Parts: sequence; structure tokens; C-alpha cells
Amino acid sequence: MQTPWEHRFAQRTQRMQSSAIRELLKLTALPDIISFAGGLPAPEVFPVEQFKEACNKVLCEHCDIALQYGTTEGYQPLREMIAQHSTRMGIKIKAENVLITSGSQQALDLLGKIFINPGDRILVEQPTYLGALQAWNAYGAEYITVPSDEDGMITSELNHALRMGPKFIYVLPNFQNPSGTTLTLERREELIEIAGNFGVPIVEDDPYGQLRFEGDHIPSVALLDSCQQPDNGHYTGNVIYLGTFSKILAPGLRLAWVIAPSEVINKLVQAKQGADLHTSTFTQAVAYEVGKSGFISEHVKTIQSIYKERRDVMLRSLEKHMPDGVQWTHPAGGLFLWVTLPETMSSLSFFEAAIQEKVAFVPGNAFFPLGGGENSMRLNFSNSCPEKIEDGIARLALVIKKQFA
Amino acid sequence: MQTPWEHRFAQRTQRMQSSAIRELLKLTALPDIISFAGGLPAPEVFPVEQFKEACNKVLCEHCDIALQYGTTEGYQPLREMIAQHSTRMGIKIKAENVLITSGSQQALDLLGKIFINPGDRILVEQPTYLGALQAWNAYGAEYITVPSDEDGMITSELNHALRMGPKFIYVLPNFQNPSGTTLTLERREELIEIAGNFGVPIVEDDPYGQLRFEGDHIPSVALLDSCQQPDNGHYTGNVIYLGTFSKILAPGLRLAWVIAPSEVINKLVQAKQGADLHTSTFTQAVAYEVGKSGFISEHVKTIQSIYKERRDVMLRSLEKHMPDGVQWTHPAGGLFLWVTLPETMSSLSFFEAAIQEKVAFVPGNAFFPLGGGENSMRLNFSNSCPEKIEDGIARLALVIKKQFA
Repeated sequence: MQTPWEHRFAQRTQRMQSSAIRELLKLTALPDIISFAGGLPAPEVFPVEQFKEACNKVLCEHCDIALQYGTTEGYQPLREMIAQHSTRMGIKIKAENVLITSGSQQALDLLGKIFINPGDRILVEQPTYLGALQAWNAYGAEYITVPSDEDGMITSELNHALRMGPKFIYVLPNFQNPSGTTLTLERREELIEIAGNFGVPIVEDDPYGQLRFEGDHIPSVALLDSCQQPDNGHYTGNVIYLGTFSKILAPGLRLAWVIAPSEVINKLVQAKQGADLHTSTFTQAVAYEVGKSGFISEHVKTIQSIYKERRDVMLRSLEKHMPDGVQWTHPAGGLFLWVTLPETMSSLSFFEAAIQEKVAFVPGNAFFPLGGGENSMRLNFSNSCPEKIEDGIARLALVIKKQFA
Repeated sequence: MQTPWEHRFAQRTQRMQSSAIRELLKLTALPDIISFAGGLPAPEVFPVEQFKEACNKVLCEHCDIALQYGTTEGYQPLREMIAQHSTRMGIKIKAENVLITSGSQQALDLLGKIFINPGDRILVEQPTYLGALQAWNAYGAEYITVPSDEDGMITSELNHALRMGPKFIYVLPNFQNPSGTTLTLERREELIEIAGNFGVPIVEDDPYGQLRFEGDHIPSVALLDSCQQPDNGHYTGNVIYLGTFSKILAPGLRLAWVIAPSEVINKLVQAKQGADLHTSTFTQAVAYEVGKSGFISEHVKTIQSIYKERRDVMLRSLEKHMPDGVQWTHPAGGLFLWVTLPETMSSLSFFEAAIQEKVAFVPGNAFFPLGGGENSMRLNFSNSCPEKIEDGIARLALVIKKQFA
């Protein structure tokens, strides 16, 4: 029904209508539901004692700064900590290449703000992260998709897709959301080469890169790209890298960062100044206190071991309970795995039945900007304890078996 | 010079070029400068002990929630606290009418996102808040201005301006930024009536409303408007109200709120989900702990008395040092006053001379979206101690007197 306000909303907000998916996901918050739907860290891994100490220290020693307005670029000690960490990892940057954002979601929004004219195309993996689509829909983005397999984006399809003229390529190379897959080293190199040939920048979103449970770390796309650039003392190159504290400290802080050439950072700063002036100086100062002595790399090991156990339980439970014809990915890290049903099935069709059985997931089509993916679903393994994972998968398998009948 | 990135930036970002003003303002952060340029609260009024207690309590009792992802709408106890406070002040609302934002700057950005199509006109006071212009320029806004005097926006000019078809009216009725003036009750009523006649909504930005040093509180535009609406148990009406914790607790938290009819809140929530998912649950929980027992209304009295003294010192210093022909407003609250020079003078022309004398201000033309205002400047009195205010005004007067010579 047309209301007094609806006709006033901007045209672009038509793309922001509350989706059927979002309505469904409200059901996942009902009591007693075992939810594999969210993307929440385990609260057991929040380093509460470290936060208490850090808050006290910040309020005793730096309250004039931490409670006051700050610079749009971010709290300088935190920017420097990130620059030093990145340089140790091989990406030689300075603090001027780091922008602190209010979660990576804000980085996605600011990238949309500075790059996307209405109708511009963005090249994404299929499936891809839902939150990126939400951010860019608001700027009138269109999408070009490249399919993925167990090794991530199928880079041999990139040449064809890039001929359609995307503004940038968006990729989550490590333990992808939603699929849990990891882009191989060979494909990372192919991605960089082909993107370079077409002169199209890459946005690398890496929220889970440090949460690897097994196998060797693969260098980030940003690192591989920067190694090919002339070493002139400045970070140049073709990759904008997004990192976050949400999965390695706590998402409630809303703290993330962008690494980019300084001319991109400068434009993002202009956009961020109008968007929220700056990210909370208090949470920035607290994160710096928690992280400055190297605590995070120790803490990450704890998270890895807990999430690995949960992933193992989920994989074993799927093996034990799921009927033939159901397949799933085997992520080497991160928070999610991806289940594929026989082609004729739709996970949407039994979503409500699953809720009745007190188990929830995200229907796969939410991650397909051009449609498709109905026979798939995303499962989160980080937020439920092992017993609930086993129980929840058993319930889900029951629901699915009924579909086969 | 065209760089590899510049040609990729979206058209709308051309309006976001780093302004001459912003370059100038970098000078105000140099050491030894007495800066009347910023809009910073006095750090002396940050309630550090209350924050320490609140952080401890939140981390001991609510860390599962405060460090975790939260809902886009905001931390429910905080929304309810704001709804109850507003209802006590006369605006009958429920938590569903409250959206928590990452500072009021984010509220301005989200309003731009949901309302402004490129080329849409926004009606603003002249002078008006620079940050609103920055937020809306990014969406391609154009501006219609209505002049102001000592009683705020000259509402008798509204009929003419509204015929130009603005999307909404933006007004700061209390101790306006930058002018320090307050919209009279009669003009508030006239504003509501005329806006209603034209069917144009009002955005009321009220960061300083509680910081009144003298005289009687004037009901907010939102309250006056809501009194005219049918009492059907829902907040309806024509006004979107912006409040913030930045001036009554601490800006470093980046915490503010929007009050609006629920259909507007719902659209803002969709926009915010793509913009930053949600505001820090941690800072929200801390602000709730600090505020829940009524501490803020006591604390506001402390702020009022400190800022009143500083305003008085600034007014007396202006009286003592400024040459004839220089005028200034007498704000009854807030953080700013507005100085008007003889018409032929330009505050930009002696900005650098002032910096040489170690005193800074914001040149007035920054607050005029359509040009003008060169013979004016904004002075902040909240952030400098009384001795520095006297000293800084004396220096500034010296610089100005040289212009007269």
C-alpha cells in the first residue's frame, strides 16, 4: 500500500526492499532453534579479560583521545600496527595505505560510493557474499558472475566475463563466504594476470584468512600482486584488500580496515567523512591495546582449534546422516560450508519444515545475484557447540530425506 | 594529474574533492594553535569513572551480547531508554521508532541514501551544517537556501523556497551549527505549518538541545508537530528527529539516534544494513549502562556550567578586543558563535595571518552551499579553557584590526 512516505524514497532504494530471505532469517532467531544460518563467531572465544584490561588502560591513560572526535583515517597507532603486521606478512605498506572502517561492511559501502555509477557492473564469484550485494545494490550496481568450484572462482572463465567491462572484481579467496572454498595459488596468479591485462582492479575481501585449520597458508592476492609492482617505496598495484577484527577479536567492536594505494585511501576518506566522520576512537584504542603486544596471533590459535573441532563434527555428522545425492564442501578454515542437493531440489521449499524441526540454514539462492542456487544452502559451524552441530545436522538430514521420499 | 585510479571514481565523487576549507583546517591542528575551529567537546567533561564502571559491568555481565554481532536497529535496551526519555519529553514513541546510528553523521548519510535522487533539492538554512552538505553531496543533492537571523531560519521566506520543490527541509533549531542561534517558538510553528501545507518533511538535527545555559527550553519541532497528529498509538507526523550522545557523553563512542515514523525507520534499517550492518554493540551497551539510571541529565548540568563560563568569557573577550564594525551572535547554549565582519571583508583573506598568530577559526563561506558568507566566521567556545579563549580572541582581534588598517 502506498503510504505518505513511500513515494518519497529515492529510486535506488527500490533495490533495498526487505527480501524474502531476510524475512525467513527472522525465523532463525526463534528460541530452541539450532541455527546454522548466521555467520557469528563463537562467543566462547571473545578475549574478555584482555578487553577488560584494555578498557581500563585506555580510560586511565588515553581518555582525552579515546572519547574525543578522531581523524577520519583512523587511530594512528592502530593504522601503524596494521601496516607493520601487513609488512611482516609481505605487503609493504605504510600507515597512509590503511583506512580504519566500521566493519568491512562499511568498506564495501564506501567502495560502492566511490566507484559505482548506476548501471556499472561488478564481477563477483557465484555464489558470493550477500552483504556485498546489499551494499552495492544501493548504488545501482549490476553484476557479472563467474562460477566457482572446490578451488574457488574458475579463473579460466574470467576473460569472457571481463569483456563485459566490470568496474572491479570482487573475490573472497580464503574459506569463502558462503562456499567455504579457497582459491588456489595458480588461480590467484591467473586472476592477477588477467585482471591486469584488462586494467580492472581487484577487491580482495579476507575476513577469515587467519582462520586456517590445516594445510599451508596461501599468499593473499594483494601480496602476490604487490610483488609484481616496482619497489618505489609506495604501495601501488591493482588490489584493494579488506581485513577485519570481527573474526579474530570480536564483531561487536565493528572494526575493520582497507589496504589500498594512497590515492584510493584518500578518496575513501572523503567518502567516509560524509558517511560517519570516523570509526569509534574508543573501540579503536581498545583494539590497539589488546593487539599491540602480539596477543592476536596467539589468540587466533585458540579460535582455530575450536572452529576446527566444530567443522570436523559437522563434516562427520553430514557423512553420517545425509542421504546419497547430497554433497558438501570441505573448508580448510573459516566459518562456513556449502551443501549442494540434487538439481531438482530447492532448499527454500523445505526451509519452513526445517524451522519446524528447530534447525535453520541460509537458502543458497541468496548468494546468487542473477538467480540460481536453489539446490544449495550455507551452513555455519562456528557458532554452535559440537553437540548441537551433531543434533542439528541429524534434524536437517531428516527434513531432507523427507524431500527425497 | 590523471592517475590510474582517478578515472575510475564514480561521477558523484567529483563533488567530494578535498575542499580548500579542509586543507586550511589541517593547519588548525598545528602545535600551539588556539583553535576555535573544531566542534570538539571539552575533554574535561568526559565522565571517565562512569565509563570505567560501565565497561567492567558490560564485559562481566553482557559480553556475549556486547562483543557479538547485533541487530541493525540497535541494542534494544538503548532503543527503549531513548524511547522512554523522548516520551517523557513529550514525543510519544516506542522503541520501533528509534534507530541507533554511528554518530549523527551516519544518520545524515542514510537520509541521503534513502531520499536523494541525483539532482534532488534539499532546503537548508543559510548558513548550515557543513557535514550535512558533505553527506548529501555524495548523492548528488542540490540546495535551496533560506536566510537566517538572530531568531534562526527566516520562516517568512519558506513559501517562496518551498515552491522550488525540495525533498525535505533540514533545520538545526537549537544553538545552530554554525550560527549559535535558536529558532523561536513562533517560527517553529510556522515552519511546521508551511511544511505541512507543501507536504514536505522536516529533518530536525538537535545535537545541542540539552546544552542550554539560560532561558526556557523551547519544544522541539518534532514534539510540536507530533502534538498535531492523531493519537493512534503510533508516532506519525512530518518530522525526522536526530539526537546524539556526542555532546552529552562523548563523541568517541560514535553513538546517535534517529526518531521517525516506523516506515521511515524500516527503510533506514535496510540502508544501514548495507552501510555498516550495525553500530558497535559494545559502545551501545556501555552507553546504556552509563545512562540507564538517569546519570546523563545530571551530567548535562556540569557540561552546561562549564560551557556557559566559556561562552561568557568569549563574549566578554569579543566585547573587549574586537574593533567597531565586527558583530557576533549571543548563543543561549551549544558550542558555537558566529562573527560577522563588515561586508567588504573576507575571513578567508586573513586565515593564514591568524594561523601565524597561532589562532584558528572556520571561514564562514564553508557553511554557504550556494556561495557567500565570506565576511563571517564560526568560533567554537567549548574546547578551550577560559584563559586560552581570552588570549585567542585578543590575537584574532589583532589580526582583524590589521585588516581595517
